[in-house]
Amino acid sequence: MAVDLLGGDDAPAVVVDGALRAVRADPDLHLLLVGPTEVAVAVTAALTPAQRARVAVRAARAVPGPAHHAPRADSTVRAAVAAVRDGTADALVSAGSTGATVTAAALGLGRWADVRQPALVATLPAVSGPVVLLDVGGSLEPRPATLVRHALLGAAYAAVAHAVAAPRVGLLSVGTEAGKGDRPRRAADPQLAAARLPCGARYVGLVEGYDVATGARADVVVTDGFTGNVLLKAIEGAYMMAGGPPVGGGTPRAAALLGVAGTVVVCHGAAEADDVASGIALAAHLWRRGTTDRVRALLDGAAQHPPPSDSNDTEVTA
Amino acid sequence: MAVDLLGGDDAPAVVVDGALRAVRADPDLHLLLVGPTEVAVAVTAALTPAQRARVAVRAARAVPGPAHHAPRADSTVRAAVAAVRDGTADALVSAGSTGATVTAAALGLGRWADVRQPALVATLPAVSGPVVLLDVGGSLEPRPATLVRHALLGAAYAAVAHAVAAPRVGLLSVGTEAGKGDRPRRAADPQLAAARLPCGARYVGLVEGYDVATGARADVVVTDGFTGNVLLKAIEGAYMMAGGPPVGGGTPRAAALLGVAGTVVVCHGAAEADDVASGIALAAHLWRRGTTDRVRALLDGAAQHPPPSDSNDTEVTA
Repeated sequence: MAVDLLGGDDAPAVVVDGALRAVRADPDLHLLLVGPTEVAVAVTAALTPAQRARVAVRAARAVPGPAHHAPRADSTVRAAVAAVRDGTADALVSAGSTGATVTAAALGLGRWADVRQPALVATLPAVSGPVVLLDVGGSLEPRPATLVRHALLGAAYAAVAHAVAAPRVGLLSVGTEAGKGDRPRRAADPQLAAARLPCGARYVGLVEGYDVATGARADVVVTDGFTGNVLLKAIEGAYMMAGGPPVGGGTPRAAALLGVAGTVVVCHGAAEADDVASGIALAAHLWRRGTTDRVRALLDGAAQHPPPSDSNDTEVTA
Repeated sequence: MAVDLLGGDDAPAVVVDGALRAVRADPDLHLLLVGPTEVAVAVTAALTPAQRARVAVRAARAVPGPAHHAPRADSTVRAAVAAVRDGTADALVSAGSTGATVTAAALGLGRWADVRQPALVATLPAVSGPVVLLDVGGSLEPRPATLVRHALLGAAYAAVAHAVAAPRVGLLSVGTEAGKGDRPRRAADPQLAAARLPCGARYVGLVEGYDVATGARADVVVTDGFTGNVLLKAIEGAYMMAGGPPVGGGTPRAAALLGVAGTVVVCHGAAEADDVASGIALAAHLWRRGTTDRVRALLDGAAQHPPPSDSNDTEVTA
């Protein structure tokens, strides 16, 4: 797992702390710390020799550029992307600005040919199981074709990453009756009803804001990245107001990026050490399940559950 | 207060019950029940003679048309709008479909000349005072000019309806740094920074989803009706998950419609009797404060707090 030591509002301190927790918690985890050597030393110095053997360092300086701009050539997130591209690392974790990380990953690893807008996928624990919400900020403009693509990605992700059988997929809108919503939603609704979804997923129609928190109507909730982002943070704010999330519930502090040729996890910009550690754990979970390749294969209409070793990089275009 | 007896998913039962509670709770309240006579009788029969003297009935049949279509000529919400227009009632309360109510009010009472999209305004109690969120479903498409207009409406409403001094006005987006957001937000942000807001309000820039629930950054949160609607319901879902809203907090079940020439309150479609009663109480509160006329006057740059009697109907265009 390549970890961007300089990503996030409170880097490098919380990233160092999060990396330490992750290494100690998972005895099979290997980290590649990407950032200034003196910061990486703060991690390795705090580990036992056995733990230290699982940590490597790739020196890199400077910080990601501003959101929606390509990061600077020497930025740590770009160096971490390069480590994934050249096979030194299996996955990338950054709490850097979402825009910079998404851009670096799309440019450095390549988008899937049929995915115009990579999606950030957040998983919320709910009463009856996880709720997969996408997009939460990978792209911001709502387009019907992007919403339909998100439905395919989300259904495959729910099945592969969370073992949800026959996921129910809903389109977030302002009411459940057909015809409710703004123009992109009204255009996407019939397209989704006609779409062939992977993993036995079925489209259940329009769902509302409640359903994101409760999971009552859908396992996968599809929306644009602007709406998903503000909604996720609103739920977080509500739990803060209510004195904390329900037991076993809450909002995730890390999200997976789907639609690029690699395993990429973006932590909350205001991540704390625990959030960074859980982002690293998520990346490890996704990689061990071969999530990226299996989701890609499902979208290609290939075998339902090919093992990760069946993945074929030639399917991926830059 | 004209009450649409047939508005809402569970009409007329919950509306009858809500009207009863409202009449009993407020000895100064007069209701005009608009709907089938046999339903109105269910209200009046349950009241004392003194209470009954404060209740009148206007017979009307049929239900509002589907969302985003003009209601049918004989619909109860249109009859209730007519009662406000002809002065029989001071305000209108409906739990009918938002689209039908907004359309009936805009057509029957007239929109303000400079308001293209009337806004539904919801007030959330937060730690440091109320948070005014708009739009929560009056219109659905985000346009920069509409967002700027919402800021003016929201600032005036916070000052008049909730006595918020010098309201802080924020624009909902995916981050707080300038430049964050989708195209409508990026266009509206500098326009808002340059706008002259009423009531000493100041624009505080971009705010995030958390701020709607917590109120930490802004007293007025401006967004489009699609985002506001799903966000409000997501917060509601989160409170359901958390075992209930915080003490003194929660989400409103009724919203005020701003931008039409009259006092209109829309209750949640899934309103229960308490929600209808609180919608009626909100309408009475708004009318007693002369909210509509004072907000209108503030937008005209007129005297800061003219009494309701100063309102001039010739300013209103149909």
